[in-house]
Amino acid sequence: MENKPKVTIHDIAEKLNITASTVSRALNNNPRISELTRKAVLKTAKQLNYQPNNIAAALRHGKSHIIGIIVPTADRAFFSSVVRGIEDMANNLNYKVIICQSYDNYEKEIQTIDALLSARVDGIIASIGKNTENFDHFKRIQAKGIPLVLFDRTTDALEVSQVMIDDYLGAYKVVEHLIQQGCRRIAHFTSPKKVSIFKERLRGYADALRDYDIPYDEELVVKSNLQLVDGRESMEQLLKLKVRPDAVFSASDYAAMGAMQVLKENKFRIPQEVALAGFSNDPFTSFTDPALTTVDQFSMTMGKKTAEIFFEQLKSGNKTAVPQKVVLKPELIIRESSLKSGT
Amino acid sequence: MENKPKVTIHDIAEKLNITASTVSRALNNNPRISELTRKAVLKTAKQLNYQPNNIAAALRHGKSHIIGIIVPTADRAFFSSVVRGIEDMANNLNYKVIICQSYDNYEKEIQTIDALLSARVDGIIASIGKNTENFDHFKRIQAKGIPLVLFDRTTDALEVSQVMIDDYLGAYKVVEHLIQQGCRRIAHFTSPKKVSIFKERLRGYADALRDYDIPYDEELVVKSNLQLVDGRESMEQLLKLKVRPDAVFSASDYAAMGAMQVLKENKFRIPQEVALAGFSNDPFTSFTDPALTTVDQFSMTMGKKTAEIFFEQLKSGNKTAVPQKVVLKPELIIRESSLKSGT
Repeated sequence: MENKPKVTIHDIAEKLNITASTVSRALNNNPRISELTRKAVLKTAKQLNYQPNNIAAALRHGKSHIIGIIVPTADRAFFSSVVRGIEDMANNLNYKVIICQSYDNYEKEIQTIDALLSARVDGIIASIGKNTENFDHFKRIQAKGIPLVLFDRTTDALEVSQVMIDDYLGAYKVVEHLIQQGCRRIAHFTSPKKVSIFKERLRGYADALRDYDIPYDEELVVKSNLQLVDGRESMEQLLKLKVRPDAVFSASDYAAMGAMQVLKENKFRIPQEVALAGFSNDPFTSFTDPALTTVDQFSMTMGKKTAEIFFEQLKSGNKTAVPQKVVLKPELIIRESSLKSGT
Repeated sequence: MENKPKVTIHDIAEKLNITASTVSRALNNNPRISELTRKAVLKTAKQLNYQPNNIAAALRHGKSHIIGIIVPTADRAFFSSVVRGIEDMANNLNYKVIICQSYDNYEKEIQTIDALLSARVDGIIASIGKNTENFDHFKRIQAKGIPLVLFDRTTDALEVSQVMIDDYLGAYKVVEHLIQQGCRRIAHFTSPKKVSIFKERLRGYADALRDYDIPYDEELVVKSNLQLVDGRESMEQLLKLKVRPDAVFSASDYAAMGAMQVLKENKFRIPQEVALAGFSNDPFTSFTDPALTTVDQFSMTMGKKTAEIFFEQLKSGNKTAVPQKVVLKPELIIRESSLKSGT
């Protein structure tokens, strides 16, 4: 293992025959330094393998140029795509991004916030875990005086800017589409959790039924954790009803996939006998047979918008007067699993 | 926003009528402190909303109890599952995990290492980006004297412990299976990159052909970035050959999915006319129609094994004499896309 003496800004200064403070300013993108000088400094810094002592700098200036992102799981296409949108903007502004996963676990969510604060992030962007009902740990971020912005899974219990899609509208559009396809007995897979996205989707479902004079039937609304296996169980439960549903609108693509498997195993024709729709437009939804109708959430846009608000807040020294709430419009993606035309 | 005076270990000590150093020891899990005292301290710490000044502690002890993980993308099921395996063990040992994505971008990979070192991680676990051919940035981690362990996408250019699966064996098994299904003109999708996993899969492909006396045909080996769109293009290219292949073994599930789409669009029967196999056992491979034959990489096990080696190294003060190389055996998952029996 190497163990060379550490390269400092003085070494860079000496090599370029300029002062150390000019080097420091150049490295900190001070506008008073010419582009030419800045480039020369960066080049020399790289040649010498200079590594800024960011931890010391962070303690001095209170800036690490690192943003923390908390997501339930980074492997859902939706979350990873939002993260990508945030990273794109962050990288352009010379910020780095570190990610923590809460796995929808309340205790772990608290720990991830500890970890990010320990890592001295300049601010945190988060999507709240499904099981979180107390938000004190998020208040700790605010108490530190650093920006906190929420996206997708948000809460009004915190005084904080948030970016979300109109889950109500997305759900309403799906159910309206299913009704227009002739479905009358439309089941809904939802979550028992307090997270607003599922409540909004349920509200959209209920309102669409009401607007088309279809009675809301409690036995068609199945609550679960919305994973693939839950979708399977929910579908099996629905198939035991005296009158089976002629459509299922699942608040998650994975649960919709579980339902599709059970329907195919039981030789039901999709969409002719049971139409299916999910929510999120996960990439796999276009790989299934039939391809799954779903709702696109413009995740990259959500990421960019979230980052925009975050950096505004950061620039203003976290003094933004009124938290913003940005609601993006989702898009209904109609595919074969619900399109009965021609049948 | 709150701005209360910061709670210290002295406040906890006062409340419990014990010394501050006992509180400190209890918080640091010192075995000399009784379980009863430790629990009382943790409870009071929580009540008072005590937040340890980990950054100061890190500077004092050189320990942040945070591990950094670098993956190309966290949204691939394989990587997220390895990360989960690592996190499981880390959490049990009271370590927290932060993740950075390199997006297979060399410059970004360097920056993620900067970010993690700035965040004062106690060590780094990484899977190398597809485009990385120079490893100096990884040497910087080693120069810091903190553990570095690589998994899956590793390199022998670094003196470092690594955990991987036997990509050669996985590929060999796939091709042997395709030959046993009667396929004789087996194409292979591979990457032009230096990452060893793809070289090993290509070697397994070539050796299986050789062992079964099937000539290696350069025009059947298609190099690309192995994303879905690349798989589509590669398949289109293969369909233009004078004699089309009767099977495709793709080094990636996504590229195999692209090939499946093109074959279905062109009304080829899978597997009767063209058999298909991927690599990684991404969850979507069981959702496709036909379901995709693939290779399972035991990603959770890989994560656990990687974490095990990492923590051994950490415990020994990063003084492990000889880097370990652990090679896990993969499993062939045979599904409809390659199973011709009965036709």
